[in-house]
Amino acid sequence: MATAGKVIKCKAAVAWEPNKPLVIEEVEVAPPQANEIRIKIVATAVCHTDLHQLFENTHEDCFPTVLGHEAAGIVESVGPGVTEYQPGDKVIPLFIAQCRECRFCKSPRTNQCDKAWMFPESRFTCRGKTLLQFSGTSTFSEYTVVDQIAVAKIDPAAPLDKVCLIGCGICTGYGAAVNTAKVEPGSTCAVFGLGAVGLAAVMGCKAAGAKRIIAVDINPEKSEKAKVFGATDFVNPKDHSKPISQVLSEMTDGGVDFSLECVGSVAVMRSALESCVKGWGVSVIVGWTDLEDFSARPLQLIAGRTWKGSVFGGFKGRDEVPGMVKAYMDKKLKVDEFITHNMTLDQVNDAIELMKHGKCIRTVLNISPQ
Amino acid sequence: MATAGKVIKCKAAVAWEPNKPLVIEEVEVAPPQANEIRIKIVATAVCHTDLHQLFENTHEDCFPTVLGHEAAGIVESVGPGVTEYQPGDKVIPLFIAQCRECRFCKSPRTNQCDKAWMFPESRFTCRGKTLLQFSGTSTFSEYTVVDQIAVAKIDPAAPLDKVCLIGCGICTGYGAAVNTAKVEPGSTCAVFGLGAVGLAAVMGCKAAGAKRIIAVDINPEKSEKAKVFGATDFVNPKDHSKPISQVLSEMTDGGVDFSLECVGSVAVMRSALESCVKGWGVSVIVGWTDLEDFSARPLQLIAGRTWKGSVFGGFKGRDEVPGMVKAYMDKKLKVDEFITHNMTLDQVNDAIELMKHGKCIRTVLNISPQ
Repeated sequence: MATAGKVIKCKAAVAWEPNKPLVIEEVEVAPPQANEIRIKIVATAVCHTDLHQLFENTHEDCFPTVLGHEAAGIVESVGPGVTEYQPGDKVIPLFIAQCRECRFCKSPRTNQCDKAWMFPESRFTCRGKTLLQFSGTSTFSEYTVVDQIAVAKIDPAAPLDKVCLIGCGICTGYGAAVNTAKVEPGSTCAVFGLGAVGLAAVMGCKAAGAKRIIAVDINPEKSEKAKVFGATDFVNPKDHSKPISQVLSEMTDGGVDFSLECVGSVAVMRSALESCVKGWGVSVIVGWTDLEDFSARPLQLIAGRTWKGSVFGGFKGRDEVPGMVKAYMDKKLKVDEFITHNMTLDQVNDAIELMKHGKCIRTVLNISPQ
Repeated sequence: MATAGKVIKCKAAVAWEPNKPLVIEEVEVAPPQANEIRIKIVATAVCHTDLHQLFENTHEDCFPTVLGHEAAGIVESVGPGVTEYQPGDKVIPLFIAQCRECRFCKSPRTNQCDKAWMFPESRFTCRGKTLLQFSGTSTFSEYTVVDQIAVAKIDPAAPLDKVCLIGCGICTGYGAAVNTAKVEPGSTCAVFGLGAVGLAAVMGCKAAGAKRIIAVDINPEKSEKAKVFGATDFVNPKDHSKPISQVLSEMTDGGVDFSLECVGSVAVMRSALESCVKGWGVSVIVGWTDLEDFSARPLQLIAGRTWKGSVFGGFKGRDEVPGMVKAYMDKKLKVDEFITHNMTLDQVNDAIELMKHGKCIRTVLNISPQ
């Protein structure tokens, strides 16, 4: 292709510093080096983790950067040593890599690849400065360069402006229910927080055969959406003077079998654990936060509860994302229902504002034609 | 028998108030009522939970009481409705009952019987006052009355001055490894705290086929004892300036597969979790405390670790304690090795002092001849 081996000048949304709007800039994207792949991003969604990086995890040394990690695109060119991917492949970049060689990749029990957080050097520059890679993906850009161990090749027929959501939120919530909690048929579940991850968790609980799925959110507008994905009940903690764990315990004769925290709040993590039934209740931390400790009374666990967590729903990205895309193509997995807004890259700050104020489930930024 | 149906006057160690030595008194033990069993205690050991009640969990309304819960004895008489037990049966009282009728008893996943903490009315009086039941067992007495759902009938040939330890510490530690952590063959384990429960956890790890068992204690004298039960390594956190989790991580290339906290300290619970390998590490809270919160960073779980806990090692007492006694009789379970001291009921305060200062593993009080 004409661009292979050359620096590409293109548009990207640059986060120059924390707590400031992103700036649409012309950036230079260097050619992929050994084992790297340059991708033309077709569509990217905005996820809460992007906001977390911009507004909460605001170490100065993480900036300037290009955010974005929930995307789909087309391989533009590949660096030396890349044989599994070629220009034109439809792909989803992975913020958690799968090297297939480490003991974690070789174990069926986890997706915590030893190279998961070893991101490649940035190939972005702008106004003479290097822009840091974010999550190894940096998809708020017309082009990005990622390591080949962080790319899933998917069905070429897949609509990239939809399946981009499989790159983070959908797998994270769905897998937390199916892979991490291992929700059982006939069980009772509670999902705390009904953003895209929580709704995907509801969908995962339903797919796993849960009999009752209680969706919990302080925003009453989430109730109808939750039912679309399989929730049987909706509870707004603000409607009750009792602690939500007590409300759920009374609704379920002692607590739920499985609870999933999809907020990223240590207070909600505690409520989710306390909402589980003694003896065998399993609570999964899905929401991403690491600024504070989570905590509970020892008796909560001593009474037989289990506390777990996962990243990306425990999915091994290269092996399993293609199957999730196939499930969508086969109409076994909902994706379209998460998308409340479509925008362009220029509107990224509007998309961020929508998410910041809980006014969207997912906004897809359409970057390039498929 | 001559005493059946009558009040028995006998000797017991009474805890009149918190933080005071026990007082050997003549007490009255009423006959067993419906579904109750009166037991002649042959031997009882002193466990840290007795000390916890006396020195830490010191609500005034828990006193006066008769402590003791790790014991073995002989059924003296039974109340109406008791058909499964008869006078002369050798038994171990259970501080966690098994009614066999509730949904928890009917599930193979837990021993958290719904009646576990519903203790019968006390049958003890002394100097005109009712002495409260402790843990449904109150074994620091020549006789006690317990509910029939809290009694395990054991091999009549079993030496009661040994198998009394199966009534708490041994099952608690051994089961935490085998039933709760589900330690796997070839795995690497760490056990924090080498009292009787910790040593039993070491024994459980070994029985489950662990390849490496790292015993951790700040008392260097525990090293040799730990090796008796199967420990392959001993680490004293005081010998290191680094956090113990980092020491263990370096010893094991990333952390242990299973860790068991057998101290009852929220700081140690955190260290035990942090000592586990990402991806699949499982940490079990075994030590009993509920005065403070335990805590950790969310990423510890999000990275794929699991935090669990159990009571009595997850054993269903009536069904499984007889098998543990059999395992001892068949020389598949060590018991004698835990016993460092033998005393009489009159010496109970000496036994408490020994435990308070970490000078014993288990002291058995020999109460009545077998």
